[in-house]
Amino acid sequence: MYRTHTCGELRAKNINQPVKLAGWVQRVRDLGAMTFIDLRDRYGVTQLVIDENTSKDVKANLEKLGREFVIQAEGKVRERSSKNKNIPTGEIEIEVAGIKILSPSAVPPFTIQEDTDGGDELRMKYRYLDLRRQNVRKNLELRAKMAHAIRTYLNEEGFIETETPVLIKSTPEGARDFVVPSRMNSGEFFALPQSPQVFKQLLMVAGFDKYFQIVKCFRDEDLRADRQPEFTQIDCEMSFVEQEDVLNAFEGLTKFTFKNVLNVEVEDFPRMPYSEAIEKYGSDKPDIRFDMLISDISETVKGKGFNVFDSAEYVGAICAKGCAGYSRKQLDELTNWVKRPQIGAKGLVYVKYNEDRSFKSSVDKFYSAEDLKQWAEKLDAKPGDLILVLSGDKTKTLHALGELRLEMAKQLGLRKQGVFKPLWVVDFPLLEWDEETERFYAMHHPFTAPKPEDIKLLDSNPGDVRANAYDLVINGVEIGGGSVRIYDSELQSKMFKVLGFTPEQAEAQFGFLMNAFKYGAPPHAGIAFGFDRFVSLFAGLDSIRDVIAFPKNNAGRDVMIDSPSPVSEEQLTELSLRLIEKKK
Amino acid sequence: MYRTHTCGELRAKNINQPVKLAGWVQRVRDLGAMTFIDLRDRYGVTQLVIDENTSKDVKANLEKLGREFVIQAEGKVRERSSKNKNIPTGEIEIEVAGIKILSPSAVPPFTIQEDTDGGDELRMKYRYLDLRRQNVRKNLELRAKMAHAIRTYLNEEGFIETETPVLIKSTPEGARDFVVPSRMNSGEFFALPQSPQVFKQLLMVAGFDKYFQIVKCFRDEDLRADRQPEFTQIDCEMSFVEQEDVLNAFEGLTKFTFKNVLNVEVEDFPRMPYSEAIEKYGSDKPDIRFDMLISDISETVKGKGFNVFDSAEYVGAICAKGCAGYSRKQLDELTNWVKRPQIGAKGLVYVKYNEDRSFKSSVDKFYSAEDLKQWAEKLDAKPGDLILVLSGDKTKTLHALGELRLEMAKQLGLRKQGVFKPLWVVDFPLLEWDEETERFYAMHHPFTAPKPEDIKLLDSNPGDVRANAYDLVINGVEIGGGSVRIYDSELQSKMFKVLGFTPEQAEAQFGFLMNAFKYGAPPHAGIAFGFDRFVSLFAGLDSIRDVIAFPKNNAGRDVMIDSPSPVSEEQLTELSLRLIEKKK
Repeated sequence: MYRTHTCGELRAKNINQPVKLAGWVQRVRDLGAMTFIDLRDRYGVTQLVIDENTSKDVKANLEKLGREFVIQAEGKVRERSSKNKNIPTGEIEIEVAGIKILSPSAVPPFTIQEDTDGGDELRMKYRYLDLRRQNVRKNLELRAKMAHAIRTYLNEEGFIETETPVLIKSTPEGARDFVVPSRMNSGEFFALPQSPQVFKQLLMVAGFDKYFQIVKCFRDEDLRADRQPEFTQIDCEMSFVEQEDVLNAFEGLTKFTFKNVLNVEVEDFPRMPYSEAIEKYGSDKPDIRFDMLISDISETVKGKGFNVFDSAEYVGAICAKGCAGYSRKQLDELTNWVKRPQIGAKGLVYVKYNEDRSFKSSVDKFYSAEDLKQWAEKLDAKPGDLILVLSGDKTKTLHALGELRLEMAKQLGLRKQGVFKPLWVVDFPLLEWDEETERFYAMHHPFTAPKPEDIKLLDSNPGDVRANAYDLVINGVEIGGGSVRIYDSELQSKMFKVLGFTPEQAEAQFGFLMNAFKYGAPPHAGIAFGFDRFVSLFAGLDSIRDVIAFPKNNAGRDVMIDSPSPVSEEQLTELSLRLIEKKK
Repeated sequence: MYRTHTCGELRAKNINQPVKLAGWVQRVRDLGAMTFIDLRDRYGVTQLVIDENTSKDVKANLEKLGREFVIQAEGKVRERSSKNKNIPTGEIEIEVAGIKILSPSAVPPFTIQEDTDGGDELRMKYRYLDLRRQNVRKNLELRAKMAHAIRTYLNEEGFIETETPVLIKSTPEGARDFVVPSRMNSGEFFALPQSPQVFKQLLMVAGFDKYFQIVKCFRDEDLRADRQPEFTQIDCEMSFVEQEDVLNAFEGLTKFTFKNVLNVEVEDFPRMPYSEAIEKYGSDKPDIRFDMLISDISETVKGKGFNVFDSAEYVGAICAKGCAGYSRKQLDELTNWVKRPQIGAKGLVYVKYNEDRSFKSSVDKFYSAEDLKQWAEKLDAKPGDLILVLSGDKTKTLHALGELRLEMAKQLGLRKQGVFKPLWVVDFPLLEWDEETERFYAMHHPFTAPKPEDIKLLDSNPGDVRANAYDLVINGVEIGGGSVRIYDSELQSKMFKVLGFTPEQAEAQFGFLMNAFKYGAPPHAGIAFGFDRFVSLFAGLDSIRDVIAFPKNNAGRDVMIDSPSPVSEEQLTELSLRLIEKKK
C-alpha cells in the first residue's frame, strides 16, 4: 500500500496516528536542526518534519531530494506548533520515520505553483507539468463536475444520451470538415463532424423523443482567438415540442448547473427579441449585468447644422454614469479606442453633464445648453454623467456603441465576476443577406423553421422573416443556440428555393435527411451549448484553452506532442495518397 | 402544446380526463362501426378509438392515415371494454374528438415491430427506422443507463472525467491509425487515438490521481467479426496504487453497474492465474458459469499402444454430464465440429460411461474397461457421462478443448442468459514470442510492469516473466483489461532491450512519454473496459453492433449515409494531397 491517507486529509483528530503518505515534493526548507518538506498531491499539501529524532538513514536520503520528486513518507501525525490557517491540514504535521524516493525529478522548466514563472508556450509544451498547478487542475475538476451535473439533470428529465458517429460523411459545403482517408476503402474518405446535427435529427425521426450528448466536434479552419479545432458541445434535441418547451428545459438545465456546481441561484431568464438586443445593446449577445442602454437620438440631434449628424443614417448614444469628470486624455483615449478597425467608428462626440448642471461637449459649436439638456433627458442622464455619441451607418454604429458600452462598463467595474445574468435572445432573422455572393444564407442552418406568422413574407420580403431560433447568452457570452426545425417537406422546399438551391443541389446536400423525413418526422427542436465556453464562464476565465486538458495552440498545433506531423510514404501509399507541393 | 401526456402514461386513474397525445401510427384496425388506432411513442402505445360518436371530419381524415404517420389526437380517456394486460396502458383507451396529421409517411421498407421482416442490410440502410423498433431502442436506452451508472460510481469514487484529444499524433508503429490531414498545417497529419493510453499516463504524471473517461477510440484495420472502426472505451488510470487496488475499484464498479442497471447481485470475483485459465478452461477468458474443467490425462492414457496418444505432447479431456446417450450421428457431428479449421483438432476420442457402468469408446481396441475406468476416475465422471478427449500440441489442444467445452455447454444449456459470473484473470505473461519475426512482443504494451519477483528472469528466461496485468472476464467475454505500469526508467530501458528496441528506436516511439517521466512519475496502474461489449453483455446480445446507434458494417462502411466517399479534387488540393491508383 502506497498511502494510508492523501495529502489533504489529515486533521487534528488524527494526531498520534501512524500514517503513510505519498506525493510530490513541493518544497524543502532546511533550517539546520529541522527540515520541513511540503508534500503535495491532488488533494492538498501536508507538512513533513525531520528533526533531531529522525534516524540518520532518513536524513541521508534528504540530501538527494529536490522539487517534484515523488516520495513516500511514513511517520506519526503530531500537532503543529505554529498552525497554518490557510490550509486544511494546517493543524498537523508528520514526524517522519522513513522516506522512500519513488521517482526522482529533473529540475522542472518552470515552477509548479499558482504564480508560475513559465510563459505560455513553455507551459503548453510541458502541459503535464502545468496541469500540476492547483489553479489549472481546478479548472479541469470544475469541468468534470459540470459535465456530471449536466448529465444528471438531463438523465432525470428523460433525455437519452446517445453516441453518434465520429467517422461521418463529407458534404459538398463541408469546406471546414476534417477528412479521414480510409485504408479499408482506399481512395475514399470519412469526415469528422462539425456537429451531430443530422444524426440528432435522425434520432428524432427514430422516435428517441429526447436526445443529448456531450460530444467532440471538429472544424478545420483558421483559428480566430479562442477557437479550437476540436471542441465539445452539449448537444440536445427534443420531439413534439415548441420553442418555449426547449427554452424552459434548458433554462432548467442552466439553473441546475449553477446551483449544483457554484451554489448560485440565477433568476428567471428574460426573453429578448434579436431586434431589441441590437437596438438597445448593439449586440446579439448583450451583457445585461448592467444597463447603460443605447438610445437612438437621431431625431433629437438633427437639423442644428452639424453635418456629421444631419447626414448620418443613425445617431446613437449611451450614458456613462458618473464619468463627467473624464479628463481630456481619457476622452482622447476613448476616441482612439472607437476608431480602431474592429470598432470602426469615425469619431466620438461627448457631452459632459457636469455636477453644477452645466454642459460641456465636443459639439458646443452646434448645440446650445438647451439642446444638450434635451439629449440628457432622452438618455435619462443626471448631473455627473457622461454622454457618448456615435453616428453613421445604423448597423455599424450600433455595433460600435455596443462595444463602447462594454468598454465603459469595464472601466466602471460593472462587468462583475461572480454575477451571472442569463437571457434568451429570440426571434433571430431567418436569413442573412451576403453582399459578396448576392444571396441569402440561413443564419442558423437550412432546417431552421420560420415563425409561422412570418411565412407569408418568404416570397415578398425574405430578409424580414424571423426564425424560431434562440441563443442563450450569459454575461455577454453566447453559451448556446438552437432552433425549431422544419419537418414539413413543402416548407422545406420553399426554404431551399429562397436560399437559391436548385432542387438537384438541395437533393445532393440534404437529400439524405429529406429522405428520412418521408417516413414520418415528428415536430422537433434542439439546442447546443458550447461546453468549453460554458466551463470558462463558470471558471471566470476569458479563454476556453484553460479549461481543456490538452489544448492546441493558435496555429492549431499540439506543441506538447508536436502534432500534426508528417507520416511515412508507406502509410500514404496504403491510403492511395501522395503529397503534392502546395502552390503558394 | 403537442401533447398533454406520452403514449405510455395513461392509466385507469386518468379516466374521463381530456388529453392530447402525439406519436406514430403503429396500426389501424377498421372494424366498420369502430376504428382502432395504436399510437406509439418512445414511452409506449395507447389505443385510440373512433366510433359512431366521432365527427365526420375526423373520420374523413382517417382515410389518409397509414402506418408510421405522425399524428396528434385529442379526446377523452375512457375505460377499455376488453382490457389488454400486456401493456401498461391496457386499461384505458382514448375516445377521439380530433385527429391532426403532423407528418405523413411513405410505406416503410420493413415493418416497425419486434419481429421485423427487414434483412440486416436493409435495416442498416434505414437505421433511423430500425431504431423505432422497441427492442432496438431499448438497447440504446440500456447503454445510456449504464453510462450514467458508471459515471455516477466513478465520480463518487473521486475519479475526474477528463477529455483527452481526438486529434493526436501518428506513431511509427501506428499502422492501424486513422490519419487526418490538416489544412492549417498542410502536408502534415493528425491521427485518431487507438486509445488515450499516453494521455492518461500523462494525467498521472500531472497528479490527477484518478482519471476516467468514456471515450471513442479508432482502429483502421480489417474488421474481424464484431469489431467497429470506432468503438467506445471506459478508460481509467489511478496513481499510488497496486494491482489489488485497481481490481477492487473496478470490481466495485462492475458490481454497482449490475446492481444499479439490472438489479443483479454478483458474487465476489475470483482471481485466476492465466496459467490456470489455460490449463483448466483452454482459454484466457473462461466462462465459469459451469465447470466441465479440462483434465490433463496424458499420464493416464500413455503406454497402451495407441500411437496417437503415445506420440502426443498432450492429451486432455472433458466430461459432459449425462451425454453418454449421444448417438453415432451426434458424435460424428462433434468430430466434424472439432476438425473445423478454427478449432483445428485432428480427431475426437470419446468414452461413453453408460448408465449400466459399462464403457464404450472409440478406442476400445487399445484400452480395456479397466483403463477407461481410470480415465473416468480422473475426470470424476459418473455413469451416464460422456468423456471427450483431444490430443496433440499442448497449446493448440487446450484451445480446441476450450472451444469444445463451450460447445458442449451450449448443447447442455449451461451458458445461461441472465446468470453473470465475472472473474479476474491475472498473472498474464509479460511477453509473447512471435515465430515469424523471431522476437518478443509486449502482450499488453511496453509499459506493463513485470511482477517484481519475476524481474530476475528478464535476462535468462523472458518468456516466463509474468506481468502485473489483468483482464476482467464475464461469461467467457473479455470485458476489460489493464496493467500496473512501469514508472522506473531503468526497468523501462531493460524492457525496451528485451523487446529488441535500440535506444534510438525506443526514443523515437516512446521518448515523449519517457521525457515526461523524468519529472517525477508516480506509481500508477489502469484499466480499460470495452463499453460496447459491456453493454451487449448486459443486453444479452452476441454482437456489439446492436448496441451502437449508427454502426458501420463489416466492410467498415456506414451504409445509411454511404460513407466513406470520394472528396473533391479541390478539397484534396487544399490538403496538399493527390489520389494515386493503388497497385493491386
